[in-house]
Amino acid sequence: MTDLQVSSPTGVDQRVQDLLARMTLEEKLAQVVGFWEKSDGEAVAPLQGEFTAERTLDEAAQHGLGHLTRVYGTRPVDPVSRARWLWGFQRRLVRETRLGIPALVHEECLTGLSAWRAATFPTPLAWGASFDPELVTRMGEVIGESMRALGVHQGLAPVLDVVRDPRWGRVDECIGEDPYLVGTLGTSYVRGLQSTGVHATLKHFVGYSASQSGRNFGPVHAGPREIADVLLPPFEMAVRDGGVRSVMHSYAEIDGVPVAADPALLTGVLRDRWGFDGTVVADYFGVAFLHLLHHVAGDLGEAAGLALAAGVDIELPTGDAYTEPLAAAVRAGKVDEALVDRAVTRALTQKAELGLLDATFDDEPPTAVDLDSAEHRRVAAQLAEESVVLLTNDGTLPLRAGVRVAVIGPNADRPEAMFGCYSFVNHVLPHHPEVGVGIDVPTVRHALAAELLGSSVVAARGCAVDDDDRSGFPDAVRVATESDVAVVVVGDHAGLFGRGTVGEGCDRDDLELPGVQRELVEAVLATGTPVVLVLLTGRPYAIGWAVERCAAVVQSFFPGEEGGPAIAGVLSGRVNPSGRLPVSLPRSAGAQPFSYLHPALGGDGDVTNLASRPVLPFGHGLSYTSFTHTDLTVEPTATTDGPLVVTVRVTNTGERGGDDVVQLYGRDLVASVTRPVAQLLGYQRVHLERGQTAVVELVVPATRLSFTNRAGERVVEPGDVDLWVGPSCAERETQARVTLTGDVHRITADDPRWTATVVR
Amino acid sequence: MTDLQVSSPTGVDQRVQDLLARMTLEEKLAQVVGFWEKSDGEAVAPLQGEFTAERTLDEAAQHGLGHLTRVYGTRPVDPVSRARWLWGFQRRLVRETRLGIPALVHEECLTGLSAWRAATFPTPLAWGASFDPELVTRMGEVIGESMRALGVHQGLAPVLDVVRDPRWGRVDECIGEDPYLVGTLGTSYVRGLQSTGVHATLKHFVGYSASQSGRNFGPVHAGPREIADVLLPPFEMAVRDGGVRSVMHSYAEIDGVPVAADPALLTGVLRDRWGFDGTVVADYFGVAFLHLLHHVAGDLGEAAGLALAAGVDIELPTGDAYTEPLAAAVRAGKVDEALVDRAVTRALTQKAELGLLDATFDDEPPTAVDLDSAEHRRVAAQLAEESVVLLTNDGTLPLRAGVRVAVIGPNADRPEAMFGCYSFVNHVLPHHPEVGVGIDVPTVRHALAAELLGSSVVAARGCAVDDDDRSGFPDAVRVATESDVAVVVVGDHAGLFGRGTVGEGCDRDDLELPGVQRELVEAVLATGTPVVLVLLTGRPYAIGWAVERCAAVVQSFFPGEEGGPAIAGVLSGRVNPSGRLPVSLPRSAGAQPFSYLHPALGGDGDVTNLASRPVLPFGHGLSYTSFTHTDLTVEPTATTDGPLVVTVRVTNTGERGGDDVVQLYGRDLVASVTRPVAQLLGYQRVHLERGQTAVVELVVPATRLSFTNRAGERVVEPGDVDLWVGPSCAERETQARVTLTGDVHRITADDPRWTATVVR
Repeated sequence: MTDLQVSSPTGVDQRVQDLLARMTLEEKLAQVVGFWEKSDGEAVAPLQGEFTAERTLDEAAQHGLGHLTRVYGTRPVDPVSRARWLWGFQRRLVRETRLGIPALVHEECLTGLSAWRAATFPTPLAWGASFDPELVTRMGEVIGESMRALGVHQGLAPVLDVVRDPRWGRVDECIGEDPYLVGTLGTSYVRGLQSTGVHATLKHFVGYSASQSGRNFGPVHAGPREIADVLLPPFEMAVRDGGVRSVMHSYAEIDGVPVAADPALLTGVLRDRWGFDGTVVADYFGVAFLHLLHHVAGDLGEAAGLALAAGVDIELPTGDAYTEPLAAAVRAGKVDEALVDRAVTRALTQKAELGLLDATFDDEPPTAVDLDSAEHRRVAAQLAEESVVLLTNDGTLPLRAGVRVAVIGPNADRPEAMFGCYSFVNHVLPHHPEVGVGIDVPTVRHALAAELLGSSVVAARGCAVDDDDRSGFPDAVRVATESDVAVVVVGDHAGLFGRGTVGEGCDRDDLELPGVQRELVEAVLATGTPVVLVLLTGRPYAIGWAVERCAAVVQSFFPGEEGGPAIAGVLSGRVNPSGRLPVSLPRSAGAQPFSYLHPALGGDGDVTNLASRPVLPFGHGLSYTSFTHTDLTVEPTATTDGPLVVTVRVTNTGERGGDDVVQLYGRDLVASVTRPVAQLLGYQRVHLERGQTAVVELVVPATRLSFTNRAGERVVEPGDVDLWVGPSCAERETQARVTLTGDVHRITADDPRWTATVVR
Repeated sequence: MTDLQVSSPTGVDQRVQDLLARMTLEEKLAQVVGFWEKSDGEAVAPLQGEFTAERTLDEAAQHGLGHLTRVYGTRPVDPVSRARWLWGFQRRLVRETRLGIPALVHEECLTGLSAWRAATFPTPLAWGASFDPELVTRMGEVIGESMRALGVHQGLAPVLDVVRDPRWGRVDECIGEDPYLVGTLGTSYVRGLQSTGVHATLKHFVGYSASQSGRNFGPVHAGPREIADVLLPPFEMAVRDGGVRSVMHSYAEIDGVPVAADPALLTGVLRDRWGFDGTVVADYFGVAFLHLLHHVAGDLGEAAGLALAAGVDIELPTGDAYTEPLAAAVRAGKVDEALVDRAVTRALTQKAELGLLDATFDDEPPTAVDLDSAEHRRVAAQLAEESVVLLTNDGTLPLRAGVRVAVIGPNADRPEAMFGCYSFVNHVLPHHPEVGVGIDVPTVRHALAAELLGSSVVAARGCAVDDDDRSGFPDAVRVATESDVAVVVVGDHAGLFGRGTVGEGCDRDDLELPGVQRELVEAVLATGTPVVLVLLTGRPYAIGWAVERCAAVVQSFFPGEEGGPAIAGVLSGRVNPSGRLPVSLPRSAGAQPFSYLHPALGGDGDVTNLASRPVLPFGHGLSYTSFTHTDLTVEPTATTDGPLVVTVRVTNTGERGGDDVVQLYGRDLVASVTRPVAQLLGYQRVHLERGQTAVVELVVPATRLSFTNRAGERVVEPGDVDLWVGPSCAERETQARVTLTGDVHRITADDPRWTATVVR
C-alpha cells in the first residue's frame, strides 16, 4: 500500500463531508459496493449462481468503486503480476474518475492471506486449542504484513462465532465453544492484523453458529439473553479492546429477524452501545438474500433500504442491490438519501483512515514478495505444535526409538488435509486441479519418516476420506500387522457447498467419521497392533469408541502448513503436547446442540435417561509430563464490582519440561436467571521445566461474572461463586468459594473485559 | 361429586373474601398445597426421591387441605372402595377442620382417568392424527363423567406443548407439530371435560417441548417471537375459547428464566392479556426445582416467594415450599402476605366454582361405577380408527381374503403397547406386576385373527422392544416364510424415567427403532414375503428405509384399548384409513430439531449440502379410496382484518367410501419478519361415498395469518398470501393467491381464532 497518511479525525470528517457534498447519487452508491470479477470455477459463495451481474469492471468503476473484491484469492495467479495489475487499476481510478478515489481492496485471510503460494496457518479451532493469545497476535502480524505488501487493505477475518453445534460445517472457521476464549484469541488476531495497517473484519455478527440442527443458514432459535451473554461478548471485546475497523453482518435470522435487516443489533448494540465507528460490510450477497431467501423484502430495492437502514454500509461482494435498485428506491422517495450519505460517510472515512484519499499509486508495485517466509513458517510451526491435543495415551506415545511404524489412512499423506475450508488450498485450488498446492506442506507420513530416522515407516492409504471404497483395507491391515504400532490418520477434507466433509455448506447429519474411516480404524484395531489414531478434522467427531479402544488418540484441528512436522513431533516426543480441547468432544449428533456452558440439567436418570455429558470435556488435553494445580487462593469475600484476585500453584510433577494451560473456571451458585454449571473465567499458558513450580495470578474482572438480568441489564449480583482450577472444565482439582457482597453491579464500558494474568 | 352449586361470581368473591379474612397464615397455606401419599413403587415424578415429606395426611390436613393428589392414580385400588375412603376423608375435612373446606381432588386423565380398570383412550398424537375435534370433545365428556362419578374435580390434561423435537420422550403426550392443530384439539378436549363440571388443566405452560436436543428439562433456546407465534397459541385458544379453569406451569427455563418464576408469562400473558381467572398449579415439585435444579432461589422459602410472585397459586403434588418455608419467609417479611392471599383467593374461588364450599359429602359415595362402559369403548374405537395413518401401500393392503398371515414383532401381542406413558397401565401398573392390565385390550394379533376368520394367522414375537436378544429371529423368519404376508408390529413401550423407550424421562439420542427391531424387520424382509409394517409408537421414528422397502407401512400412535381392532380393521379393509400425520416423519436424529413450519432454507446444495426435508410430510396419510381437491376459490383481494372465505371441492374418485381430511395451507410471501413456507390455516374431516363430491368452505379469520412483528404486536400485514389444499403440507393440489389490502391489522381478543368450516 502506498502513501499511508491517516488524517486527524476532525480533518477526516471535514474532508469526507466536503467530498460527499460534491457527489452525485451514482458516485455515492459506487463507494458502497464492491466488484467481483466472476470466478470461472464452481461457486465459492452461497447461491453465487443466482447473481449474474453482467457489468464489466470498467462499467462498474466509471463513477468510482468502493471495494475491489478478492483480487488475489479467486484464482491461482502470480501475486506480483496481480499486484502490477492492481496498482494500474488503482491509478486509473485516481486519474480517470471524477473524484479520484481508489478502491478499498479486501481479501479473505482467516488462515493466512488467501493467495496462491501464501503461508497457510492453522485453522481457528487450532488457535483455540493453543490457548495462546500472544502467538495468535503474532500470526495476525505476519498475515497483515503480506497483505499490506500486496496492496490489500482489509481482511475478512476473524470469525468470532461461538461454536454451538458441531454439525455445522463452518465450525472449522470458529475458535471454540467458550465466548471468552473466542473473544481473547479473536481480539488478539485483530490486534496483530491491524498493527500492520490492515483492517480486520469480524465475522459473522451475530448468531450464525446457532442455526437449527447445525444447518448453514438455518433459523436461529435463541432469546436475547443467549445472544447477549454467549454470542455477542467476543464481538464486544474485539470492538472495544481490539479497535476493529470493520464488521460483517451474519446471514442468520434470529427469532424471525434477519440480522442484515436488524437495526437493534447493527446500530443499537454495535454503534450506540459499543461505540463502533467503522464500517459494516455485507456478507456476500447478504443484502439480496433479504429478498431472495428471507423474504422480508419484496424486491432488491426494498432489500437495500432495509439493510441500509439497519446499518449495512457496504454491499459485498458486488453491487446487486446498492446499485440501480437502491438508486430507484431513493429517487422514488422510498429510501431516504440521508441513509446513503451515512454509509458513504463511513466508507470514505475508512478510506481516509487507510490513507486512500491521498494515495496516488505512483510508487511501484512490489517486484518480489515472499508470502511464505521463514518467519511465517516459524509462527505456523509454533502454533501448530501448541494446538495438537493429546486426548488419550496408554503410554504408547511418544513412540519408542527404533519402533516399526505403519502410517495408514486417507489423511496421512494428503497435503490438503492440513487446511481448513477458507484456506486458498481448499477454497480455490480444487477448481484448478492443474496447479499444485503451491507451498511446501510436509504430510504426517513424510514428517514422521523424517522425525523417526532409523525407524521403519511403511504406509498404506486404506481408504479415502469420504467414499465407500474398502479395497485398500487389506493393504492397510497388512502393513499394520507387520509393524509395532499403527498411526492411523483420518478425518475431514475441507470444502465448500457439499464438496467437503466440513466447511461452508458442508453440514453433517451425524458426527461419525466420514465414509468408511471408522471401519478402517476398526480393521486395523483388529490386527492387535496398537493404534495411534490421529484426527485431522475441522470439527470434533463422536469418537468415543476410539477413545476407548485406541492406544492413543491425537486430535489436530487443521494444523496448517507446518502441521505435519508438529504432529510427527508429538508422536516422536520431540514436541510435548500442550493443546487443550476448545470444544467438547461430542457423544453423537443426536445429542446436539450441546455446550459445556449449560445450566444444571438434573442428575442422570432423574429427569432424563440420557446423560448429556460429552465424551471428553472442554479444556481436556494430556501432556508427556504431569501437572498438579494446588492452593487456589482468593479472598473469601469481594465486592460485586470485582476484581477477584485468584492465585493457583502449578507444578510440573513429571519427568520432562512442558507447557500447561492453567484454566480457571467459576460457577455462580444462585442467580436471578439460570447460570452455567461451569464457565471459563481466565487462562494462562505456562512453561515449566521438570519439577518447576509457578504461581499464576489471575485478576478476574467483574465482567467475567456478569450476565444479563431480567431487566436486560448486564450485571454482577451479590452471592456465592465457586472457583476452581483443574485439567478441564469438568474436574475441580483445587477450589474455593467467594462471597460477592454489595449492590448489584451494572457493567459499563469502563469495566475491563480481560482476566489479567501474571506468572510468578 | 356432591352438592354442585356454583355461586354467582359476585357472591363467590364476597364469600371468598369473608373466608380469607378469617384465616390464619397456616390455614391459608394449607389451601394452596396438595398432599400426596407416598407411592410405594418407583418414582412416577422427576426427582421424586428428593422429597421426603414425612408428614401424614392427618398432619398435613389439620388446617385444611388445598388438593388431594392422585387418589385413584397411584396404585391399583378398587375405585369404589377408594371413593368410600375419599368421601369419608372429605367429611372429616368438612366437619373437623375449623373452616370446613373440602379438598380439591385432582388426577391425571390424559388418555382417560388414571385409575385401575378405567377406559384408556388413544394418546394425544393419535388425536392429532384424527383431525377430529368433535370426537375429541366427546372423549373429554366420557372421561369427565368417570371423574365426576368418583369425586375427582380437576384433571391434569390436556398437554398443549407443540412438538418441536421427536427426541423428547414426552412427545407421546403431545398432539402434534402444528399450533393450530394442537389448539383446536386441545380446546375440544377442555370443552368436553369441563362440560361435565370437571376442571381441565393445560400442560405445560410453556416451552417445555422445545428443550435443547430434546432432553427432558433441557434449557429452551427460543426467542419471544417463537414463544408467541408457535408455543403460546394453543394455550390462548384453550383459555379464551375453551374457558379452561386451570393451567400448569412448565418445568422449562426459557432463555435463562424458569417459567415457574416468570411473572411475564404466568401473569402478564396468561391473566393480564388473556383474562385467565382460574388457578395456576405447579408441575409436580416445580416450585422446589427453582431452588434444587434451576438455582434461581437459595432455599425453598425463596423458591416459594418467586413462584408465588410469578403467579403459581398452588404447589403440587404436595407442600414442600408453600408450607413452613413460605410461612417463615412471610413472617420474616421477605414475602408479602398479599401474594399468599392472592393465591388463596384463587384457590377458594375455584373451590366455590366447583361447589366445594357448600359440599357436605353427606351423600353416599358411588357403590358401583363402570369406568369402561360400552360408550367409552365406542368412543375409544372410533378415535383409534380415525387415527391410524397409512403411510405407504403398494396394494398389499387391505389384505386379500384367505391370505395366510404371519403376525410378528414385540408389539403384536402386548396389550401395554396400545398405551402411552400417562396411561394407568404404563404409568402405575409396572410397579404392581401382580395385577393385570385390568381392562380388555385386544392386541393386534388377536384382533386380526378375529377379523380374518377363515385366514391362517400364525405368530412369532421375534424380539423384545428394547433389548438385543435375537434368539426369536429364526422363528419369525420361519413363520414369515410360510405365509403370504408378514404383519410386523414394532415400536415403543411407554415408560417413565428411562424404563421405557418413550415417555417422561425417556428421551432418545437417535430415532432408529429401539433395540433390534429394525434387524427383525430386515430379517423378515429378506424372506421375500411382503411385509406390512405396523408401528405402535409414541413418537415418529426415522423409518425412511422401511418406507422404501416394505409393502405397506401403518403408523399408529398408541391407539388405546380399542387400538387392536382398529388396526386389524385397517389391515382387513373393514376400516378405510383416514389418519394424517400430525408430525413430520423424520430423516434422522441428527436432523433435529425440525418443524414443517420452518422459514425458507435455501435450495438443496445452495447453502447447505443437507436437505432438511422429512421422509414424509406433516399431513400425509393414504386411504383405500382416492380423493381429489380442485377449484380452490377465494376473492383475489381481502382486507387485513379478514376473514378469507375459501372454498374447495373434494371428490372421492376411488372405489369405496372413506373420510378425507381437507387441509388448507398458506404462506405469507413477504413479511417484516421471516414466515414459514407452509402453515395449516384450517382443516375439515369429510366423509364421502364413492363418487361423491363436497364443497368445503373454510372461513379463515385474520388471526390465522397473524404473527408477532418487530414491535412485539400481533398483526396481519398487507401483502400477498398463497393458499393451497393438498394431500399434505408439501403438495399444492389446488391453489390461489390473495392480496391483503389495508392497514396493518392488530389482533385483539375479539378476533376469532378458529377457522369456521362448512361442508356442502
